[in-house]
Amino acid sequence: MKQITGGVTAAKGFRAAAVEAGIKYQGRTDMAMIVSDVPAAFAGVFTTNVVKAAPVKWDQRMVEREAYAKAVVANAGIANACTGQEGMDYCRQTAEAVEASLGIPQDQTLVASTGVIGMQLPIEKLTAGVRALSEKLGDSIEDGHAAARAIMTTDTEPKEAAVTVEIGGKTVTVGGMCKGSGMIHPNMCTMLSFVTTDASISKEMLQEALQEDVKDTYNMVTVDGDTSTNDTALVLANGMAGNPKITEKNGDYRKFAEALNQVNTALARKMAGDGEGATALFEAKVIHADTKENARKLARSVVGSSLSKAAIFGHDANCGRFLCALGYSGADFDPEKMELYAKSRAGEILFYCDGKVPDFDEEKAAKILSEEEVTVLADMKMGEAEATAWGCDLTYDYVKINADYRS
Amino acid sequence: MKQITGGVTAAKGFRAAAVEAGIKYQGRTDMAMIVSDVPAAFAGVFTTNVVKAAPVKWDQRMVEREAYAKAVVANAGIANACTGQEGMDYCRQTAEAVEASLGIPQDQTLVASTGVIGMQLPIEKLTAGVRALSEKLGDSIEDGHAAARAIMTTDTEPKEAAVTVEIGGKTVTVGGMCKGSGMIHPNMCTMLSFVTTDASISKEMLQEALQEDVKDTYNMVTVDGDTSTNDTALVLANGMAGNPKITEKNGDYRKFAEALNQVNTALARKMAGDGEGATALFEAKVIHADTKENARKLARSVVGSSLSKAAIFGHDANCGRFLCALGYSGADFDPEKMELYAKSRAGEILFYCDGKVPDFDEEKAAKILSEEEVTVLADMKMGEAEATAWGCDLTYDYVKINADYRS
Repeated sequence: MKQITGGVTAAKGFRAAAVEAGIKYQGRTDMAMIVSDVPAAFAGVFTTNVVKAAPVKWDQRMVEREAYAKAVVANAGIANACTGQEGMDYCRQTAEAVEASLGIPQDQTLVASTGVIGMQLPIEKLTAGVRALSEKLGDSIEDGHAAARAIMTTDTEPKEAAVTVEIGGKTVTVGGMCKGSGMIHPNMCTMLSFVTTDASISKEMLQEALQEDVKDTYNMVTVDGDTSTNDTALVLANGMAGNPKITEKNGDYRKFAEALNQVNTALARKMAGDGEGATALFEAKVIHADTKENARKLARSVVGSSLSKAAIFGHDANCGRFLCALGYSGADFDPEKMELYAKSRAGEILFYCDGKVPDFDEEKAAKILSEEEVTVLADMKMGEAEATAWGCDLTYDYVKINADYRS
Repeated sequence: MKQITGGVTAAKGFRAAAVEAGIKYQGRTDMAMIVSDVPAAFAGVFTTNVVKAAPVKWDQRMVEREAYAKAVVANAGIANACTGQEGMDYCRQTAEAVEASLGIPQDQTLVASTGVIGMQLPIEKLTAGVRALSEKLGDSIEDGHAAARAIMTTDTEPKEAAVTVEIGGKTVTVGGMCKGSGMIHPNMCTMLSFVTTDASISKEMLQEALQEDVKDTYNMVTVDGDTSTNDTALVLANGMAGNPKITEKNGDYRKFAEALNQVNTALARKMAGDGEGATALFEAKVIHADTKENARKLARSVVGSSLSKAAIFGHDANCGRFLCALGYSGADFDPEKMELYAKSRAGEILFYCDGKVPDFDEEKAAKILSEEEVTVLADMKMGEAEATAWGCDLTYDYVKINADYRS
């Protein structure tokens, strides 16, 4: 496995483009398109929110019914959520525009939107955007990068990751981009993730791999259930690497799943670290939990706790905040037995054990908590399960960004 | 039922006091005591957090084993949580000090603490505080008020409420005080609530009444499960009103429960409105839900949503924020059917119906959302259940207060 530079154009046979469609933002790109040269197997995982945006409904239907996808069209600025039948019509009109420009059948175009809820898309700008995108498609790293930039909302930087892995004597590439962030937990802004790969894999195995992987990646940032109306993770696999097609959970499947996990983990961490107004990536690692599910619950509870997040912002080694969050996670444990550590590049410190707070060097603790990546490590002393969750600190700027998001 | 001025000294036979014990704060009172002239039936509801503070364990044991309580001692500044065996010893030493000063048996003194976790109490200051409190006890409104002030942490004002109700031809008084706030949801600071009443009621009926009532009062502020290590609600009933003793769920019980509900609702609203850094009381009212439990879930999800809270702070009529929070509450509903309104003293506005956002007067909406008490009303159009939850807006000051809480 090798990390490489690139995103959605890293894998063979994928092109991308970005344009300024003027949907809501001015003076920046706000539409992106990804196209596979050949029909690709595809998989999707979507928000569990009862309120689902029109593009989510469109894509879910495609995952259920269609064998292949060739294009993805995404826009930033307006979420096309809470937009009634009109919103659904706009998804179809987007796919029609792709068909008109590129000859791709309507039922092979996936769509995704992120931005303000309850506002209708300016559909003429969107279809003009599709025409412009169709003429700009390219397979360079820069084309992928431009697409990653176009889907940003309050993100401060584009997020991409790619790896290569040998499967069946062939070099398979997995690359992707995402936008996210927003506020992450407690209730996140829309997360959009688009991963492309030239692996040859059946639609069933691809869906299985994605579904399993989000549990340890995106769901450890966004927290199960607390999803926006638009959250979408899509993977397209066009088979152009020429590896023997993966149709069962064999060694090749596991290699592919590991590559997918590397890309999704990297993207998830970038999302967390770029939380709105964030000054630090806040990681919670739980080890020696009794079950995997409890490990996940505990880790998510800590990074989701506003008090813990505020303590990280303040570089305040307030173990009570982290303990309290573990305590209401829903997972049972013995507070007298477990131990709590703070870690970062600047060192490691034990700040809770034997049911109380030991003497610790406050200055050292503050230094550890001042780094750009801070980990709170909880050793539950119960079993062998572990999990990691990612968030960010809670800052003044978070409030500022969200107090008047629409304007 | 009549609202009256007062708090824990409103009911017959209760005295209270406050002193500056210098436990952590300087130049303000930080210890309070409540004493009943006669042994009182008592009930308690406590945090569901796995990590429980020493005073919570002490009181839980009393609720399980003892028939009567006569005294409550509370301090602010240090939570006596994550303090090991030493912390438990301090609870006992506090009760011993009460016995030494007032002759009240150790097993009739309840204790409560709020403040920083993981720090040991200065026990000599605490026992000296008990002695000073014993000499200051009084039954005036001012004595109750002083006690309410002494238990504050980041609260900006003391919180009290009292009512009278006729039961069996006698005037029964229920009065109480609380401190809370902190950050309310998502994970609140400690809530302490102390209610006294001269009603004659069995311990079993009192516990039943309290347990039922917290579901619609304190738990609609603090959100089930997301409780601090110290959350405590206590009720003492000394029988001095002389009403026929309530020993079953008859009409007298329902009158008493209604009075308790009035006091707890008033205190819960005051807690919510005084959330850290809050500029507004944010109420979510859910009507026509299918079940009571779903109504509660929906209402709590809205007031607990950071994005909704930030939108209230920004006076931003961003219906997506409220809808999204309803959508991930865990309760199912039809987003195409339900309606969403914003309400306050300044008027009412419909801002979501028929699955989309209707045209509405943005200026009027901003005006409605600028009031000190703002209600988001969700009409689920499903059944007859309803629930109300209370929170506050999310402000810059919240972050400021919590970024360095310990110093």
